[in-house]
Amino acid sequence: MRLAELSERSGVSTATIKYYLREGLLTPGRQINTTTAEYDEEHLRRLRLIRAMIQVGRVPVATVKEVLGHVDDDSLPRAMRLGAAVWALPQVPEPDADDEFVQGARVAMEELLRTLGWANAQAMTSVSPSFRSLVVAAAALRRLGYDWSPETLVPYARLMRQVAELDMEFMESHVSEAEKAEVAVLGAVLVEPMLQALHRLAQEEESTRRYGFE
Amino acid sequence: MRLAELSERSGVSTATIKYYLREGLLTPGRQINTTTAEYDEEHLRRLRLIRAMIQVGRVPVATVKEVLGHVDDDSLPRAMRLGAAVWALPQVPEPDADDEFVQGARVAMEELLRTLGWANAQAMTSVSPSFRSLVVAAAALRRLGYDWSPETLVPYARLMRQVAELDMEFMESHVSEAEKAEVAVLGAVLVEPMLQALHRLAQEEESTRRYGFE
Repeated sequence: MRLAELSERSGVSTATIKYYLREGLLTPGRQINTTTAEYDEEHLRRLRLIRAMIQVGRVPVATVKEVLGHVDDDSLPRAMRLGAAVWALPQVPEPDADDEFVQGARVAMEELLRTLGWANAQAMTSVSPSFRSLVVAAAALRRLGYDWSPETLVPYARLMRQVAELDMEFMESHVSEAEKAEVAVLGAVLVEPMLQALHRLAQEEESTRRYGFE
Repeated sequence: MRLAELSERSGVSTATIKYYLREGLLTPGRQINTTTAEYDEEHLRRLRLIRAMIQVGRVPVATVKEVLGHVDDDSLPRAMRLGAAVWALPQVPEPDADDEFVQGARVAMEELLRTLGWANAQAMTSVSPSFRSLVVAAAALRRLGYDWSPETLVPYARLMRQVAELDMEFMESHVSEAEKAEVAVLGAVLVEPMLQALHRLAQEEESTRRYGFE
């Protein structure tokens, strides 16, 4: 397809597509003559992923480029490729290691992972930005005087593990490795708001079921 | 306790506490003489809640006031009091009803709730801001060509229902009605980032378990 059709089908203006091409977010089309290039379905898919990150996920352009670099890096083993792409998304800043609430939260969350018996726990606690997010959130609760024990979180973590299994099954329904990595990124950007909305609706349902018009 | 102690124990500066008092976010202390007021544990708890909303949840001050109004409104039935407090938190704007993806997503998400058989579904689809968030997220996925059928989301929704049951049990472990409503608000502001972090960690674990160093 030509640039005009790519623009129409993706809902991204031709000026913006040209900008993405210049920034290297999108690979160039196949040059037909000096003024015309031909684009394919893969360009369209990639453009939609870029738009999801920028418009829905508010991910900066430089970060999108980094994420896509990991998505396309077929030298990495699959788990690392998925992880690298998601890790490159904007994350919470490193918490203040001198803060007593952060220290307490870190110890408690390390204990949580040990209790869960997750094989990957050692790597998570040392490098995963998601573990850092967990520590930041737990520290905020502790600072407010809500000193949740790791045991309180165990049933939550087990349910999230079941959610992750659903994610992986959905991802595996896609064929190519690049598509699998794309789904992992989309999941982080688009599925999380959906899960959050489902969680709040479930709370409304459960609250009404329990309390009705008490 | 005096203002200085309230400030020290809450980690909120005296100037900020005075600002919250002026704005009516915090009820005045018991006046001992013309220059001194006495504060109690309830002030401290409330101050921590305000701080959670403003600093962690980035909730605007006017919205905090509205949320607290619902938390304190003991004329409402419990389920409505909890709902009103959470609904008053910042929500996604109303989606464009003329957008074909929004229309398709709304139909699909209404079908999802019918499939789940949630008793409260009718009220949710007409007024809940969480249903609106769900439609916005589903429309974003559809626009990207990911046309998830409602059936795909059913197992996710059932797991979120189990999460909501854990939330309610935790909430019920608190005694007063005001504290229960506070926990509902804190849940929305502080527990959601925690669930999100647990979800991503579970993905890492599941991804490593499945693919290792493939």
